[in-house]
Amino acid sequence: MSGNEATPDYVAELKSRSEKEPIAAFLGMRLVELSPGYSKVTMKLKPEHLNFNGMVFGGIVMALADQAFAYGSNSLSLPSLATQFNIHLIAGAAPGDELTAECRVVRSGRRVGISEMTVTNQAGKLIAKATGTTIPVKS
Amino acid sequence: MSGNEATPDYVAELKSRSEKEPIAAFLGMRLVELSPGYSKVTMKLKPEHLNFNGMVFGGIVMALADQAFAYGSNSLSLPSLATQFNIHLIAGAAPGDELTAECRVVRSGRRVGISEMTVTNQAGKLIAKATGTTIPVKS
Amino acid sequence: MSGNEATPDYVAELKSRSEKEPIAAFLGMRLVELSPGYSKVTMKLKPEHLNFNGMVFGGIVMALADQAFAYGSNSLSLPSLATQFNIHLIAGAAPGDELTAECRVVRSGRRVGISEMTVTNQAGKLIAKATGTTIPVKS
Amino acid sequence: MSGNEATPDYVAELKSRSEKEPIAAFLGMRLVELSPGYSKVTMKLKPEHLNFNGMVFGGIVMALADQAFAYGSNSLSLPSLATQFNIHLIAGAAPGDELTAECRVVRSGRRVGISEMTVTNQAGKLIAKATGTTIPVKS
Repeated sequence: MSGNEATPDYVAELKSRSEKEPIAAFLGMRLVELSPGYSKVTMKLKPEHLNFNGMVFGGIVMALADQAFAYGSNSLSLPSLATQFNIHLIAGAAPGDELTAECRVVRSGRRVGISEMTVTNQAGKLIAKATGTTIPVKS
Repeated sequence: MSGNEATPDYVAELKSRSEKEPIAAFLGMRLVELSPGYSKVTMKLKPEHLNFNGMVFGGIVMALADQAFAYGSNSLSLPSLATQFNIHLIAGAAPGDELTAECRVVRSGRRVGISEMTVTNQAGKLIAKATGTTIPVKS
Repeated sequence: MSGNEATPDYVAELKSRSEKEPIAAFLGMRLVELSPGYSKVTMKLKPEHLNFNGMVFGGIVMALADQAFAYGSNSLSLPSLATQFNIHLIAGAAPGDELTAECRVVRSGRRVGISEMTVTNQAGKLIAKATGTTIPVKS
Repeated sequence: MSGNEATPDYVAELKSRSEKEPIAAFLGMRLVELSPGYSKVTMKLKPEHLNFNGMVFGGIVMALADQAFAYGSNSLSLPSLATQFNIHLIAGAAPGDELTAECRVVRSGRRVGISEMTVTNQAGKLIAKATGTTIPVKS
């Protein structure tokens, strides 16, 4: 991470919010690590995540990467809004897999932030890579 | 849509599969229109879609756009795999909103396909725009 | 275009600057149309644009799309900085082709802008589609 | 790099082609390192690269990243076509700067390849990050 040197630390606040976050409960996503500019979120894939081709729906992998993105970017600037997200889906996943998404903030500036995300499975295999743009919003 | 002139029509097959698609039932996404190279999918937003900032989670909007992408691209080449997806999140959404995602295939070639997606709300307001890359897979 | 209703009009200023823009002269790009939220730029492809595979270098198509993006986004908010750009290269081009890039601003907000670009050749064939993010900068 | 284990090595062939590549001469881009799945290309910025805002044109940074992308992806699969490219422009650059673009292939598969690029300046400062999709083409 480079950019704002003296950014406030929103980690404790986000950890507290994560415990009662509706979408996290609904999708089964768990925030397992959070530090300024870094987050790790996990999710267990289930049969209800399958699509019409009998594979895990790509949108579920996107959602998991986006959740890591949200925690990582907001850990340096709260609140931040995601305005853009690009993902490369590299390998498939199956029900029973435990996916891990990690976010590393590349730059957290006054007007814009950039983050990188990776998604891997329980064997460490690369499932997806993503990048995204955030806009810090004065609350 | 431009590209393969004599592509088979997979519309009937996809409509049939959509009725028992696990992720569609889980997320509450409905395929409401499908023709070769075009799809329309709707989703009602609920309180469980809220994130830690009290807004609808961007990953839910991504998932809806990805579902339209999947039906649109597979309507011309079944099965097709999404390998890349880029989204611009333009306006927020709230529980109670009914979102509509539409996909238009820009090119469906022998080796690669490109699609465009829009997401709007019940008032016709633009919520997001996305594009994506698919790879046709010989079954 | 949606967003700022009463944005100032920077068209005349940009047209004036375009006449002495170094990169436009160097790459042979011509601004042929500009109105608030819309731009059109053309470029004639030459043998020096060929890459090691004997095809026109994709980076040249990107540069042309980026030039339309710059004029379109700055026509509503001057100066604006591009922070993200995604392009799909759809068909090839050859020396002698005259490419046209058009930009339409989708949203020009106080904190972020989104634009769409298309690149076509002299026969109207679609060569590329792109989208991008800009940040308005108070001067 | 992961994917094809026994990919042929196209490094010598590409190095030879690079010496007479028209776009490389025209833009002043130099291939300075190439191994299977990795490339490094440099470029000296000049006054003719300035845009109408008095800054180095983003399209020039894109072109340099795209050149590294082309060599990196083709080093594992020759010829490969770029079909998609996404870039985040992180910091500005000025005439006199010497930019370095590096490409690392993340996956080189039978149907699709994914690469990551970084652009830095002579001080090692991060100027841009990009990712892209390639399609291997049987020659």
